[in-house]
Amino acid sequence: MWPDRRITELFGIEHPILLAPMAGPSTAELGIAVSEAGGLGAFACAMSTPEQVRTAMSVMRQRTSKPINLNFFTHIPPVPDAAREARWKARLGPYYAELGVDPEKPVPSADRAPFGEATCRIVEEFKPEVVSFHFGLPEDRLLQRVRAAGARIIASATTAREARWLAERGCDAIIAQGAEAGGHRGMFLTDDVASQAGTFALVPQVVDAVEVPVIAAGGIADGRGIAAAFALGASAVQVGTAYLFCPEARMSELHRNALRSARDDDTALTNIFSGRPARGILNRVMRELGPMSGDAPAFPLAGGALAPLRAAAEAKGSGDFTSLWSGQSASLCHEMPAAQLTQELVREALDRLKAIGG
Amino acid sequence: MWPDRRITELFGIEHPILLAPMAGPSTAELGIAVSEAGGLGAFACAMSTPEQVRTAMSVMRQRTSKPINLNFFTHIPPVPDAAREARWKARLGPYYAELGVDPEKPVPSADRAPFGEATCRIVEEFKPEVVSFHFGLPEDRLLQRVRAAGARIIASATTAREARWLAERGCDAIIAQGAEAGGHRGMFLTDDVASQAGTFALVPQVVDAVEVPVIAAGGIADGRGIAAAFALGASAVQVGTAYLFCPEARMSELHRNALRSARDDDTALTNIFSGRPARGILNRVMRELGPMSGDAPAFPLAGGALAPLRAAAEAKGSGDFTSLWSGQSASLCHEMPAAQLTQELVREALDRLKAIGG
Repeated sequence: MWPDRRITELFGIEHPILLAPMAGPSTAELGIAVSEAGGLGAFACAMSTPEQVRTAMSVMRQRTSKPINLNFFTHIPPVPDAAREARWKARLGPYYAELGVDPEKPVPSADRAPFGEATCRIVEEFKPEVVSFHFGLPEDRLLQRVRAAGARIIASATTAREARWLAERGCDAIIAQGAEAGGHRGMFLTDDVASQAGTFALVPQVVDAVEVPVIAAGGIADGRGIAAAFALGASAVQVGTAYLFCPEARMSELHRNALRSARDDDTALTNIFSGRPARGILNRVMRELGPMSGDAPAFPLAGGALAPLRAAAEAKGSGDFTSLWSGQSASLCHEMPAAQLTQELVREALDRLKAIGG
Repeated sequence: MWPDRRITELFGIEHPILLAPMAGPSTAELGIAVSEAGGLGAFACAMSTPEQVRTAMSVMRQRTSKPINLNFFTHIPPVPDAAREARWKARLGPYYAELGVDPEKPVPSADRAPFGEATCRIVEEFKPEVVSFHFGLPEDRLLQRVRAAGARIIASATTAREARWLAERGCDAIIAQGAEAGGHRGMFLTDDVASQAGTFALVPQVVDAVEVPVIAAGGIADGRGIAAAFALGASAVQVGTAYLFCPEARMSELHRNALRSARDDDTALTNIFSGRPARGILNRVMRELGPMSGDAPAFPLAGGALAPLRAAAEAKGSGDFTSLWSGQSASLCHEMPAAQLTQELVREALDRLKAIGG
């Protein structure tokens, strides 16, 4: 059936399709639907409190007995830098004036928490079958506890060097995150956006660099992409943007509308929304300040001063200041429930593999 | 055998593998070897005089009866801008001082000629089976003469919009040039490097946008990539960097050595060598001035002031000022003659298609 069963056997799932964990849009319902359809559902914890993670995991455990992937960011919390943040706020000053937002009002601080003691205890309690990390790995002491809880450990690599680094530290599989991918780049041994490789180039070079199976990510949104990932040597795929079109994703109508009309060249990598490079649909603030800016404070602080602008603009129906995360293949996606999407991806991919298989 | 025969039938070739035309490394011998092995050989004319093109085409016609692709740039020659060029030269001033090069010595002017009357006459004389264009298409009057000479006409698209534009003007096939590709981006309806899509995202979106067959390019360097291109819906592939490793390519030892050690994240898109974005291996001048610079004069003038620096540095064995064109998959390549490479790509691709074909 599937030409490579290393990942389906490793995770105990039927189909080699992983729901990309997307902090923000992630819901228990989305994860449940994908797992129940035979893929690997996920819940992204980076923008949730430990209590919210616990609730989501409880709901998922009640509603499916299939494997689940719990995903965490592993960044080191930034040292606040008042001067840099003041400079950023000054840079945004004209927008505050334009939108009539009081620049003296305090802005929210860090809205993304790294994996730590509290979330590690949730892993130990619920024992998710897979735990995935973004931006490298947590400190060894925590990683050992995750392993002891029985989870398969996977993490994102954006270069072959990062893939080797992760494999040497015991990751059971590597996500090769090509430059097409939406949302935050998992990069952790490099900060050079200009040299990031596309999925087509990255996947075979990661496959050649490590012994463990590789999960292709970035620009995969239909059966053609899944078949192509197997051709390149991947053992599974991770799909993000396509699942943002599902009703189970927590998405504003504004973000949904932007995705519906996004073309192949409507996105770019930007650091202005968080301080780290992430791919989103080009909008006014990206064009005017970046898309990459040397002024953006360290992750995740850049987002704080933008938050009031985003709220004010969105209240008027404008996405000018909103992070409209998307990969480069939004135009390949269709709106449907997540279980149906998973089934269609399976059917399309198997049909495609058969059609090209000589 | 091959799962899609639209391109092999259109061009009258055995295997759906096109040698990427690469102005500089391109030689008659390289084109002959690929055509004789059953692919589509090419000669890139952009850096040759009409007399050199005539000689190359004569040699190719003598040594193979198989189809040949003659490739041309179609840029509009720039209006000289003395102030901008002086600013660029001033920017390079410290390098002139460092390398002991006289900044008053005149620099070479434009070294790349667009398709025009003289080259059109060569097309009419030699009637290449395929003529390919980069940076859009020539004016309609010339395009009609190429068509009347019996050539199949193809051109590069870097977005789905460019692909539609080319198809509407009668191109027989479209090259979807993903961001992984080495050398100059064919972009002509956009100048936004940040939004260029990777091969994995671009190919299916171009396939969906046009009726004519699509040739995938960018990051394809082994049988896995060729199989993946077919999975994405392409009818053929265009391979560049892998052929730079062949003895038939006109390459400096310095460029060859840089390619031998290039990793997945060692390249970037830069405009400093010519004024237009092109992918090359990151070196000192790219890191220090760019890789993209708003100061670079219009294509192809930026290269003039760099030429003496390149010559002086290369004389000392340094590639600090050399355009080391490469795609993102150099690490997948191996040194061997072009005929053997073509045969190995065919064998690997067919094996791979069989292996994943359920």
